[in-house]
Amino acid sequence: MKKLLLAFCLFTTGVHAQSTDSVTIRKIYNEILTNSPSYEWLRELTQKVGPRLSGSEGAQKAVEWSKQLMEKEGFDRVFLQEVMVPHWVRGAKEVAYIRNGKQKITVPVAALGGSVATAPKGVEAQVIEVKSFQELRDLGPEKVKGKIVFYNRPMDPTKLNTFEAYAGAVEQRANGANEAGKLGAVGAIVRSMTTVLDDNPHTGGMRYATGVPLIPTAAISTNGAELLSKSLKENANLTFYFKQNCETLPDAKSYNVVGEIKGSEKPDEIIVVGGHLDSWDLAQGAHDDGSGCVQSIDVLRTFKALGIKPKRTLRAVMFMNEENGLRGGVGYADYAKKNNEKHIAAVESDNGGFTPRGFGIVGTAQQRAKVMPWKPLLAPYGLHEIGAGSGGADIGPLAQLGTVLFGFKPDSQRYFDFHHTGIDNFEAINKRELELGAASMTALVYLLDHYGL
Amino acid sequence: MKKLLLAFCLFTTGVHAQSTDSVTIRKIYNEILTNSPSYEWLRELTQKVGPRLSGSEGAQKAVEWSKQLMEKEGFDRVFLQEVMVPHWVRGAKEVAYIRNGKQKITVPVAALGGSVATAPKGVEAQVIEVKSFQELRDLGPEKVKGKIVFYNRPMDPTKLNTFEAYAGAVEQRANGANEAGKLGAVGAIVRSMTTVLDDNPHTGGMRYATGVPLIPTAAISTNGAELLSKSLKENANLTFYFKQNCETLPDAKSYNVVGEIKGSEKPDEIIVVGGHLDSWDLAQGAHDDGSGCVQSIDVLRTFKALGIKPKRTLRAVMFMNEENGLRGGVGYADYAKKNNEKHIAAVESDNGGFTPRGFGIVGTAQQRAKVMPWKPLLAPYGLHEIGAGSGGADIGPLAQLGTVLFGFKPDSQRYFDFHHTGIDNFEAINKRELELGAASMTALVYLLDHYGL
Repeated sequence: MKKLLLAFCLFTTGVHAQSTDSVTIRKIYNEILTNSPSYEWLRELTQKVGPRLSGSEGAQKAVEWSKQLMEKEGFDRVFLQEVMVPHWVRGAKEVAYIRNGKQKITVPVAALGGSVATAPKGVEAQVIEVKSFQELRDLGPEKVKGKIVFYNRPMDPTKLNTFEAYAGAVEQRANGANEAGKLGAVGAIVRSMTTVLDDNPHTGGMRYATGVPLIPTAAISTNGAELLSKSLKENANLTFYFKQNCETLPDAKSYNVVGEIKGSEKPDEIIVVGGHLDSWDLAQGAHDDGSGCVQSIDVLRTFKALGIKPKRTLRAVMFMNEENGLRGGVGYADYAKKNNEKHIAAVESDNGGFTPRGFGIVGTAQQRAKVMPWKPLLAPYGLHEIGAGSGGADIGPLAQLGTVLFGFKPDSQRYFDFHHTGIDNFEAINKRELELGAASMTALVYLLDHYGL
Repeated sequence: MKKLLLAFCLFTTGVHAQSTDSVTIRKIYNEILTNSPSYEWLRELTQKVGPRLSGSEGAQKAVEWSKQLMEKEGFDRVFLQEVMVPHWVRGAKEVAYIRNGKQKITVPVAALGGSVATAPKGVEAQVIEVKSFQELRDLGPEKVKGKIVFYNRPMDPTKLNTFEAYAGAVEQRANGANEAGKLGAVGAIVRSMTTVLDDNPHTGGMRYATGVPLIPTAAISTNGAELLSKSLKENANLTFYFKQNCETLPDAKSYNVVGEIKGSEKPDEIIVVGGHLDSWDLAQGAHDDGSGCVQSIDVLRTFKALGIKPKRTLRAVMFMNEENGLRGGVGYADYAKKNNEKHIAAVESDNGGFTPRGFGIVGTAQQRAKVMPWKPLLAPYGLHEIGAGSGGADIGPLAQLGTVLFGFKPDSQRYFDFHHTGIDNFEAINKRELELGAASMTALVYLLDHYGL
């Protein structure tokens, strides 16, 4: 009977906790869907601050803007963490065309971040089209030497999650110049990373391997790639021309920006929620990753607005330099390690400001199991996809400290329409979708704070 | 032992069936995500055919377009079902302004479908703002007589599903003129049905009750509503002016358009998949409901493309006149009843061409239970929300014949940004999201056909 009574008490306590949690989570959604300033914050970050590639004036303005915002919101502590970041600049706008007989057809192009410039007069050569590194290697140096290698493997449209399709294609952008350079190519161009056929070139990071010739590399739009491929079938001897003026300057001083609410019971246990403050230079970085920044700040704002005093210490972290170096993410983890900080969990939003689907978890099976009882609390808000998955680039280095990582997972269908292009601007954001993301993250952080891991 | 063996056989058969189904569903998604012409069909329907309000030339063109398309796709039978539809025309563009002292501030306005015109010189009167019918009734005729009633209850932004928020506000549009007319008002204007603050008035249907004075009624944009409300707080004596030139002509002859693939085993059991062919007149009707039309045709196309011979008869139905009469939906059910047709299931897509979330089911608990084992087959495609819910307006009348209704449920967050406005155009559609909707519907129809209900 005692056992039964105990079981009953545990059961009712459990029910009571669930019901209190569900009331709190409803309050979180109500607060954010009626009062959140996140959309207006994003308008400022994207339209007033603007593009903010690491090392740029925009990045510095973004550091100041987010510091001031978190101070104005009255967080307990707001501080900067210095990091040295790569400083790559695009220079004058790139030019590219296909020269096919007497025709010269312009192709939308963007240098890849990290690439060297072409010679001032540009580079022009015949083109070798391949779909994979293996195909390129099979051709061998004699077929590649002096040519421009054109990587044209599309993202697989049958992948339901577009990030999987991206993962299956992005090596062409990241390593294409290395593979082509090794075989004597004079340039590498890559089909933009998107499933859409349009005229927007998608830039993105690349890094030269040690010891390979530094050949210039750029992305062309998917329509441009289709045209080039078709033209090559008609005339294998056509040439491609591109000219770019980018440059890597000495590393620049920059900062992660951190806002904190001190925990009331276990202040030494830290929960991070963050996004990255830097963006590419072609647009305002609205989905990538202005959204994640304002959502993260909104998490802490919402705790304050609802008078929820966290047991643990909450930190909103604006990471610097996700796009072309990850120095902010690495620097943050170094700082945490050096100071013996205990980070129990980190949540990142860096998959766009779209309608929420769930969270990916990086942790042990036991840690994931601890999260599963929360699923019924989150399902009414469209958060059905909660399980093993990806965390986020910036929080990745925290894994070595035993931190459990959570990647906010919005719907992925539209992300690569905008990613790294000139149209990733404020207009691409839907206010409700942005807010629902912030609310989802706040609900998760509330549960993490309440129950620990 | 025999029992065990039987259980084992049943188990393995079950597993085998699931695995065959999962392979087929994967093929359906692959086919649609790589080969579907639905996006190009929608481009034609929206940009070439254009707006298609019941009784208009556009509606007639849409009938011909969809008939020809389904014939070209080689369906076993394509036929028209005559229905008489209301024929309301907007006439010259509406004008509205707030006259506040010497200021005249223009407000974006659209007559509601079914409304009468104002007098040729328009109507101008003082304004009574209310949030509910009760509030209006409490004011009584003495306060309302000779005034324009302004319904300003917003859609509730805290509802996760925006259709719930719509359901909680739309009576103001549908019945506002009746309630105001009864109390002697000279006009009724309503805040547009959306959670967004912008300058797009949202039209939509209204119907005069028997015996009430026919007063003109229109929607104003949410920004206009906010301005009017604010201005009224400063000056309760300001006046509102609007002029509209709409007219209800005699009923016109129109059609449902039906395409059919004959069942190979149970041809007498029919499964319908449909959307509505008519749209409002302000835009191209891309989300409402060009999407549902092309997705439905794509379901049948996909069966053919994959060589799946349905056991039961499949029909893609383009319903006419959902927006302001439902004559097509009613007429289709009448036709089915008259011909003793057995419709086992009907699936409608009329909630926009957005990323799929699931299906609402209208049927008995037993019928819904039959669907539940399919959930694991559909979950990998983001279809998590499958259960009791809404079907669709056009298929609604089939319920009386015992048909189980399925409402395709895409993500609802952006729907009311476009619904019944001038911006519900082709550009508002994302190709992948549209295709995923078609694939979700095809997968469901495949299971319905395979297992029955």
